[in-house]
Amino acid sequence: MRYFKLTIAYDGSDFHGWQFQTSKPTVQGEIVSVLRRLTQENVQLLGAGRTDAGVHALGQVGSFRTQSSLSAVEFQRALNALLPPTIRIVAAEEKGPDFSARWSAKGKVYRYRIYRGKVVPPMLWRYVLHYPFPLDEQAMGDAAARFVGVHDFSSFAASTGSEDDDKERNMEREIFSADLKRTDDGQELWFTVHGRSFLRYMVRKMVGTLLEVGRGKLTPEDIDRLYALKDRSKSGPTVPPQGLFMVSVDHDETFRIHES
Amino acid sequence: MRYFKLTIAYDGSDFHGWQFQTSKPTVQGEIVSVLRRLTQENVQLLGAGRTDAGVHALGQVGSFRTQSSLSAVEFQRALNALLPPTIRIVAAEEKGPDFSARWSAKGKVYRYRIYRGKVVPPMLWRYVLHYPFPLDEQAMGDAAARFVGVHDFSSFAASTGSEDDDKERNMEREIFSADLKRTDDGQELWFTVHGRSFLRYMVRKMVGTLLEVGRGKLTPEDIDRLYALKDRSKSGPTVPPQGLFMVSVDHDETFRIHES
Repeated sequence: MRYFKLTIAYDGSDFHGWQFQTSKPTVQGEIVSVLRRLTQENVQLLGAGRTDAGVHALGQVGSFRTQSSLSAVEFQRALNALLPPTIRIVAAEEKGPDFSARWSAKGKVYRYRIYRGKVVPPMLWRYVLHYPFPLDEQAMGDAAARFVGVHDFSSFAASTGSEDDDKERNMEREIFSADLKRTDDGQELWFTVHGRSFLRYMVRKMVGTLLEVGRGKLTPEDIDRLYALKDRSKSGPTVPPQGLFMVSVDHDETFRIHES
Repeated sequence: MRYFKLTIAYDGSDFHGWQFQTSKPTVQGEIVSVLRRLTQENVQLLGAGRTDAGVHALGQVGSFRTQSSLSAVEFQRALNALLPPTIRIVAAEEKGPDFSARWSAKGKVYRYRIYRGKVVPPMLWRYVLHYPFPLDEQAMGDAAARFVGVHDFSSFAASTGSEDDDKERNMEREIFSADLKRTDDGQELWFTVHGRSFLRYMVRKMVGTLLEVGRGKLTPEDIDRLYALKDRSKSGPTVPPQGLFMVSVDHDETFRIHES
């Protein structure tokens, strides 16, 4: 048996999320279908995290095992030849039997893009939230910094479930870094958050809350109050999926960089 | 009667080009249909140039006249609210009666994007030609410089017609500048060409010819021979439309910048 790691980028616009669904196109479904064609085996593909419908990825990670004799490079080429151009295998590597995209993941980076200019360029509308109204970006940055650390993120969760594990009821999560900055061209505001793991909709609820801070409806200090309240109706709304990107996943080999 | 100039950006992927067609979605068709709805008049929209199916624009220019009392800002807002997100009105201005998007155009800038990396990011596949193979970019740059000046571009024309005027049989065109450069991230090669006007498929034939130079099938000196040959079968192929962008149009007010 051989074990492979895939680094996957996708435009989530046309997919019903990462996870396999019987009658709808999903990213996992598309990749699994090509892998089964290539290997003639009932291959299972594990993902580092489930992204919701419309969410994109620059560096999702998947893992699978197979008896196929194809090399990592051959898998990458064949997958890229057979997958739609909206899903790309950025890298493929052979790993040992203890590698799991899901269970070896030690952290993830997500980014949310907010377009601040008056008119969203037609090449960007699938990838940003348009918010051209005034925002106190200083206050939003202060609020973002309050996400760092170990907190109970109940106020920032979906009504049900966790992205990582539906059965896990502990709502504490550790965030390593969270920051908000303008892009070099000044047109976008990027919220980038690096955490050990995330609750479902957590990043989109964080951004919805930051926008409330930017609009003066909440203060940076309210973030701390929201941890104590554990009430998702008190935080900001869940912003739309199209601005969200799964940027990268830390596995054992890269995780040390972030710990040092 | 009032006269308006529109600066228009679009993602050409889903359109059968700029020019109106009865039963297919086109950029001009979409905008005219909204303008007629807004004005309740039989508005005509003139474009600075016709872009082919799949070609994009960052700064196409259109002009129309109307008896409507809407202001330029109101036209921009209403158009952006009613058009699909793949067509955006970047700017709208009221002009005098002698302004014509087509006849006042003194020059145009086109850009062609070639993706050189191994894997095209899923967010870029609609906007680039993927060419990951070795290229002599120095030779291509030398060849590109030979496009500058007044030349007979018969060898770089479509088999029929001119972008600007089907009836115009003079195949001489003036190119003000033409250059090839890597983007800052090193992943793309951008061919940018600024000319008074262009023959149909001319930019795409130029790029096809530059790629032949990059592959060593033609030399930079062959560009000069191609002018004399006036034989389109001797130049490179017409590259696909999706890498091509109409970047901007010079009208009287901006043209002076390029002359000085």
